[in-house]
Amino acid sequence: MSDAKVRLYVDQPLGPGQPVRLTQDQAHYLFGVMRLARGAAVLLFNGRDGEWRAEVTEAGKRGGTLTCAAQTAPLRRPPDLWLMFAPIKKARTDFIVEKAAEMGAARILPVQTRFTNSERIRQDRLQAHAVEAAEQCGGTYVPEVAELAALDRLLSDWPADRRIMWCDENLLGARAGLLEGAGAIEARGFEEAPSQPSPGPWAILIGPEGGFSEDEQARLRRMPQVVPVSLGPRILRADTAAVAALTLWQSVLGDWV
Amino acid sequence: MSDAKVRLYVDQPLGPGQPVRLTQDQAHYLFGVMRLARGAAVLLFNGRDGEWRAEVTEAGKRGGTLTCAAQTAPLRRPPDLWLMFAPIKKARTDFIVEKAAEMGAARILPVQTRFTNSERIRQDRLQAHAVEAAEQCGGTYVPEVAELAALDRLLSDWPADRRIMWCDENLLGARAGLLEGAGAIEARGFEEAPSQPSPGPWAILIGPEGGFSEDEQARLRRMPQVVPVSLGPRILRADTAAVAALTLWQSVLGDWV
Repeated sequence: MSDAKVRLYVDQPLGPGQPVRLTQDQAHYLFGVMRLARGAAVLLFNGRDGEWRAEVTEAGKRGGTLTCAAQTAPLRRPPDLWLMFAPIKKARTDFIVEKAAEMGAARILPVQTRFTNSERIRQDRLQAHAVEAAEQCGGTYVPEVAELAALDRLLSDWPADRRIMWCDENLLGARAGLLEGAGAIEARGFEEAPSQPSPGPWAILIGPEGGFSEDEQARLRRMPQVVPVSLGPRILRADTAAVAALTLWQSVLGDWV
Repeated sequence: MSDAKVRLYVDQPLGPGQPVRLTQDQAHYLFGVMRLARGAAVLLFNGRDGEWRAEVTEAGKRGGTLTCAAQTAPLRRPPDLWLMFAPIKKARTDFIVEKAAEMGAARILPVQTRFTNSERIRQDRLQAHAVEAAEQCGGTYVPEVAELAALDRLLSDWPADRRIMWCDENLLGARAGLLEGAGAIEARGFEEAPSQPSPGPWAILIGPEGGFSEDEQARLRRMPQVVPVSLGPRILRADTAAVAALTLWQSVLGDWV
């Protein structure tokens, strides 16, 4: 809707005639920063009910109400793809989360590996980055950012049917590897055509700057779910690798096809 | 070489026994910051002669000399791929240049489009970012960053044999579009196999946040060199789009195959 200048994530139900109470921060943003008045249009999404055009029906300094008018876009879920990465410097970690939301990851899992530098993350801050990326980029879905978890523990409980695209620097053949690996577990016959069936649950695993330890590598190699894939002949930083891996997966198996 | 802790770009010839004089900044970095002494090993590259292991043969506060010992890697040129993008906010423009160097663009061209916000760039600063990315990422080649040029003017003189992968938001089918477009101009029969022939000269064109103007779009559509390619169903920021487009090109036509 061209008349709505603001697109806002709200953690509330959306539907025909549904009133949406604003928090103090949201009211400040809409009425203080963006100078919206009663009757102004705003686009809302909550990650579940698609995108709705709403009107300001009450505007105050500390709160206000929007009322949903009509749905402007259905919920568009990304494929069932997780992104696992080892947190790095703050700015680059923020960047990875932003890019993962833009590129259509369904869930973002910061993982602690043997050579991960960062001992802790601010999950709430990273989640806010994912929300902001969705607001900016027209998404109707917001990936959940999980708390930092040990890679070892995640792999111990790993679902049998969720494949892992393991971005390994020691391989050649990006697309071929991914397609072959996808077919290796079950003969699903991935066709590279718009009509291809859902690729099923997947995760991408990006290593820390120092790579994976030998134990971690050996463990990953033993897991039947793991599909090692190369990201080309140059060494990529972790944040570049995240975007590149998401592109590769989306363009070969995901919703870019 | 595991004993060399520093990898440095120098704008000087490299070869067996070749002495390399350091600038004051380089001497400060090697001897002041990194605390290297005589006899220490450094890896050097100049974008032309590959990577060389050199030893510190003279260390001073304001200068010094390294002497090349042996070549540790040959020059590895990226494919003949240019990246054209409309500069955006400083941090994101820096980021695009860094990522383009990592992802193997041969040349980086900031372009002024109708809806480009930025009137000027600091070419020297962007070139330094490309050098730093190559230093960090083990590259032996540094892409040239061109001065800001008007897209209109570039397209007026555009070489007949250089195709343009135009990242257009209004299309579907990322890989298919690229492969089909690659074949459309000349029936070269691109095979997706490691033995594929060189794809020839290409450029990627990423639009500004506001997209291209109608005139620009019409002009691009008329050019036989232009191959419109989609980057998926979500709207990507310009910096994300740059990495995604480079990944797509490299994995379908470039040196990731």
